[in-house]
Amino acid sequence: MADSRAVTLYSYWRSSCSYRVRIVLGLKSIPYTYEAVHLMKDGGRQLTEEYTALNPMRELPTLLVDGVTLTQSTAIVEYLEETRREPALLPADPKARAQVRAVCAILSNDIQPLGNLRVLKHVASLFEDPAVRDARKEEWARHYICLGFAGLERLLASTAGSFCVGDALTLADAFLVPQVYNAVRFKVDMTAYPTLARVNAALVGHPAFAAAHPSAQPDAE
Amino acid sequence: MADSRAVTLYSYWRSSCSYRVRIVLGLKSIPYTYEAVHLMKDGGRQLTEEYTALNPMRELPTLLVDGVTLTQSTAIVEYLEETRREPALLPADPKARAQVRAVCAILSNDIQPLGNLRVLKHVASLFEDPAVRDARKEEWARHYICLGFAGLERLLASTAGSFCVGDALTLADAFLVPQVYNAVRFKVDMTAYPTLARVNAALVGHPAFAAAHPSAQPDAE
Repeated sequence: MADSRAVTLYSYWRSSCSYRVRIVLGLKSIPYTYEAVHLMKDGGRQLTEEYTALNPMRELPTLLVDGVTLTQSTAIVEYLEETRREPALLPADPKARAQVRAVCAILSNDIQPLGNLRVLKHVASLFEDPAVRDARKEEWARHYICLGFAGLERLLASTAGSFCVGDALTLADAFLVPQVYNAVRFKVDMTAYPTLARVNAALVGHPAFAAAHPSAQPDAE
Repeated sequence: MADSRAVTLYSYWRSSCSYRVRIVLGLKSIPYTYEAVHLMKDGGRQLTEEYTALNPMRELPTLLVDGVTLTQSTAIVEYLEETRREPALLPADPKARAQVRAVCAILSNDIQPLGNLRVLKHVASLFEDPAVRDARKEEWARHYICLGFAGLERLLASTAGSFCVGDALTLADAFLVPQVYNAVRFKVDMTAYPTLARVNAALVGHPAFAAAHPSAQPDAE
């Protein structure tokens, strides 16, 4: 019989939405079992009937926790924040909470959805010439990262301390680091975003962030 | 001197992210001043220096409330929920809250960002022939709405009662209706999504939803 206290994360090493949740699980010291779901093998193992039963959108991550199946990284981290309060990753003041959530939303709504694997494949498919395909796909990815980072840099000018919002770690930091990792893969010049680069540099060495890094996952290639 | 109790919403009649916030303001009976920001006129009035000072991402909506400036619809509605608790638009149980937020996230992360005006213009710009441009833009928009609605329909099979999650109105409903409005504009066949269509039909006549409808806004064209 399944242990209702057991926590299982369905993840892919390079999935930035999974990476966010791994950071939050680490910051809250929640042990979990890692279940790798390969997004490319067999045409995408997230598309199986078995996985669809867990995650109707056929996306990563999925978290099994407290006897329920949770999907969507933003909903998962809010649940963990509500049920495992220490350390708090949202400030107590509603206005500061709204700032943290605005940073998260820029990363989760304005940047990540435009650069995920599915969308980049779609962009590539619009072109017949393979050389053009790759160039257009990478231009597209960089375009939305840079547009989002420019806005985020302007916002963080008024919110950042040591981290994204003030001097305490928040959900915003758990959302920032995976997107910077992705940006670097796409050769985005981070010197254009000095606040983001500074906060990211302050975070990457933190044990919970290091343990959540794609290269540290069991399915890393 | 500005009245710190005054609430101002920067909105555009057809912006679905603005539409969500208008519904929540209505459900919570919060009076507000409507400030129209035209997304096309003068090359896009959200791009002015004055508006960028309010909203660093140069997007709609922005809400001035309780003396602060809030951006990102998901952060705004969570703030309103935390500071104006009646009527509650999130259930009390954390698991049910996670379900509501998962529905919201599918709409705000997986569907809306791929179909917004900026992205559709970008898709169109990839093609030289004007007839091809329009066709590809509309195909693109329908593709992501249908992909998202298919997943959402599967999810709602296990969560919906009269509304998206159970029998009480939640934030999920305030996110669904604007996306269905948008889908109908793009000629998506809603009979393929019977639960979404049923819940939407139950909501559109509600006074707060009717008042928030694009056609009821002062800047409707």
